Amino acid sequence: VEPAAPITQYRERAGIIDLSWGHPHPDALDTRAWAGATADALVRHGWEALTYGYTAGPGPLLEWLGAHVGRTDARAATTSETFVTAGASHALELVTTLLTRPGDMVVVDSPTYHLAIRTLAGHEVEIVGAPSDEEGIDPDGTAGLIEAARRAGRRVPLLYLVPTYGNPTGRSLPSRRRAALVEAARRVGTRIVEDDTYRELGYGGEAPPSLWSLAPDGPVIRIGSLSKTVAPGVRLGWVNAAPELIRELTGIGYVESGGGVNHTAALTMAAFARSGGYDVHVAGLRRRYARQRDALVDALRTAAPPMPVPSPDGGWFVWLPLPDGVTARSLRTVAEKHGVSFVEGSVFFVRRGGERHVRLSFSLFDEDVLTEAGTRLGRALHRVTGTR
Amino acid sequence: VEPAAPITQYRERAGIIDLSWGHPHPDALDTRAWAGATADALVRHGWEALTYGYTAGPGPLLEWLGAHVGRTDARAATTSETFVTAGASHALELVTTLLTRPGDMVVVDSPTYHLAIRTLAGHEVEIVGAPSDEEGIDPDGTAGLIEAARRAGRRVPLLYLVPTYGNPTGRSLPSRRRAALVEAARRVGTRIVEDDTYRELGYGGEAPPSLWSLAPDGPVIRIGSLSKTVAPGVRLGWVNAAPELIRELTGIGYVESGGGVNHTAALTMAAFARSGGYDVHVAGLRRRYARQRDALVDALRTAAPPMPVPSPDGGWFVWLPLPDGVTARSLRTVAEKHGVSFVEGSVFFVRRGGERHVRLSFSLFDEDVLTEAGTRLGRALHRVTGTR
Repeated sequence: VEPAAPITQYRERAGIIDLSWGHPHPDALDTRAWAGATADALVRHGWEALTYGYTAGPGPLLEWLGAHVGRTDARAATTSETFVTAGASHALELVTTLLTRPGDMVVVDSPTYHLAIRTLAGHEVEIVGAPSDEEGIDPDGTAGLIEAARRAGRRVPLLYLVPTYGNPTGRSLPSRRRAALVEAARRVGTRIVEDDTYRELGYGGEAPPSLWSLAPDGPVIRIGSLSKTVAPGVRLGWVNAAPELIRELTGIGYVESGGGVNHTAALTMAAFARSGGYDVHVAGLRRRYARQRDALVDALRTAAPPMPVPSPDGGWFVWLPLPDGVTARSLRTVAEKHGVSFVEGSVFFVRRGGERHVRLSFSLFDEDVLTEAGTRLGRALHRVTGTR
Repeated sequence: VEPAAPITQYRERAGIIDLSWGHPHPDALDTRAWAGATADALVRHGWEALTYGYTAGPGPLLEWLGAHVGRTDARAATTSETFVTAGASHALELVTTLLTRPGDMVVVDSPTYHLAIRTLAGHEVEIVGAPSDEEGIDPDGTAGLIEAARRAGRRVPLLYLVPTYGNPTGRSLPSRRRAALVEAARRVGTRIVEDDTYRELGYGGEAPPSLWSLAPDGPVIRIGSLSKTVAPGVRLGWVNAAPELIRELTGIGYVESGGGVNHTAALTMAAFARSGGYDVHVAGLRRRYARQRDALVDALRTAAPPMPVPSPDGGWFVWLPLPDGVTARSLRTVAEKHGVSFVEGSVFFVRRGGERHVRLSFSLFDEDVLTEAGTRLGRALHRVTGTR
């Protein structure tokens, strides 16, 4: 007899508060609202909610998304600029399928989301980390890298980054670099794939305008997600791009064969949005995750040796630089003995880098658990630096 | 202002009964049962139904699918032989991604599902139609084709077919050819991708054992679907294959990043199955689609000039051979003037073939509409053959 297969991806580790999971807090997942929205969509649309859907996504969700982008970013999207996906990662997979060929070079921010690197790698492209510094990706250096590759005969169709409340850094690319990066991409003829998953989870002022909103003439493909704001299990995200690219997405064989990629869930999301539930829900999430961030950061600042502990303006992650002489690898062994874990920074780099950073996720746990986690990690840092 | 985007893929054509759509009958889509199953899953599993799921699919659905395959095919699957997909086409996309490289040769049945050909083509492989006759694919001829390609230095990783109540033919491959094809695939080292979408929609005796069930040692990858038996909009299908291939599927970047490909829908399906609703529902579908098939076939046999009109044992399609001197192209023009349409047979072939067949789908319409469609097509056939 086989052991029972699990239900969720999350695996608990006995005695360890594991800050490596970028998963939502259980109380942020509104099961009652989703059941209600499902019933609403099925009554309102009847059998049309269960059959093959319009390939770009059902009209009611395309229309809500277009207006929603206008409320959360610097310009709205038309329905012909919008395509519903089964999550942000699926959006990246589809766009990469369209734009790349094996042997191409693809540039990614340094650091960047590790599973995006894996998704790109599945397309047998050469992945190269862009030059970057404390403010994020360096536009001129990146353009130079791409131009050099071009002169050597390489195709460089795609540049991937998470410029707003980024994973893993929590940082946002400054405005002048946004403009410069869009201009550079236009000049060198490379498409920017902007993963904008965390835009709506800002805890201070407004999120900066997306790269997509700065470039109406099409060099940027923006990926949105409903995994952090609504629920990852429902598998919904979207793409905003020039109508020509949207049409190419609808022409992918299995997308047309399936009648869109997640029709019933998409109409359920439109019902949830129509109920007014979405805005109230996301406002609550921002308060929740800001408190969770503070619990972790405050505990760490209190318990750790003197060292900078950044507090991100949005997203789910603290990107913690380690004291001199401490590597993520060496810290992890000690930290796990103290009952806390994390992701080592090197995971977010294509080749070398990140050995002296760790990513701490504060999304999954209650404030008191995060306080305990920060305290344990602080003690582990004292241990490895010999300060206590 | 843009026109409102549609909700569904189906487009009505004024005055034409369009038999080209392989879509379910609206009354076959049980909106109340799906709303109930959603509520059930969300109450039973709580937040675990909305978070990132176990990558191969949530345990409750893997377990039901394994046993379900045992009830509808000649052997059950273990959970380690099962992977939940977002529909059968998505399963084909994933498997093709794993097994093929650009420039490979891929063999498909002749004729076969046209959007499978398109899905394969997206992977930049050379697609070659297998030799076949009235009984279906020819195992020896196919093995010879693959061996010749191998001798010429080609990789031939994959053979695709729909051997049971096939699309477009409605036919099932005879037992001795099944055994011979599996043996041939084993010998030449090519994986068979068996699209088994229509297995449960048989209207006479039992469906033959799948190719997968004949070959426990792994040359066959079986694709199952819930689009025809439950609803296409929910986007659920599955793969049965050797555990090693299932592990490779769970390693695909965007699949791991997403926590499986359709977690909430998968748990909803498990709830629907647990309620006992599935078996009753599918028994009703078999009666429904058998009546719809009969309405179309009977009307055509009555109204058309003397000619063979096959009545399929299962699935959704009549594959109609046309009388001497009539092509699908010439018939379609006349048929549409008579208020009926269909898909021309050539669409289901890689290169030449099918010019004198049409595919008629009886899935979408009421019996009286199908009677009218058969009558109109009969009249059009009289017109093109000059018999009335």
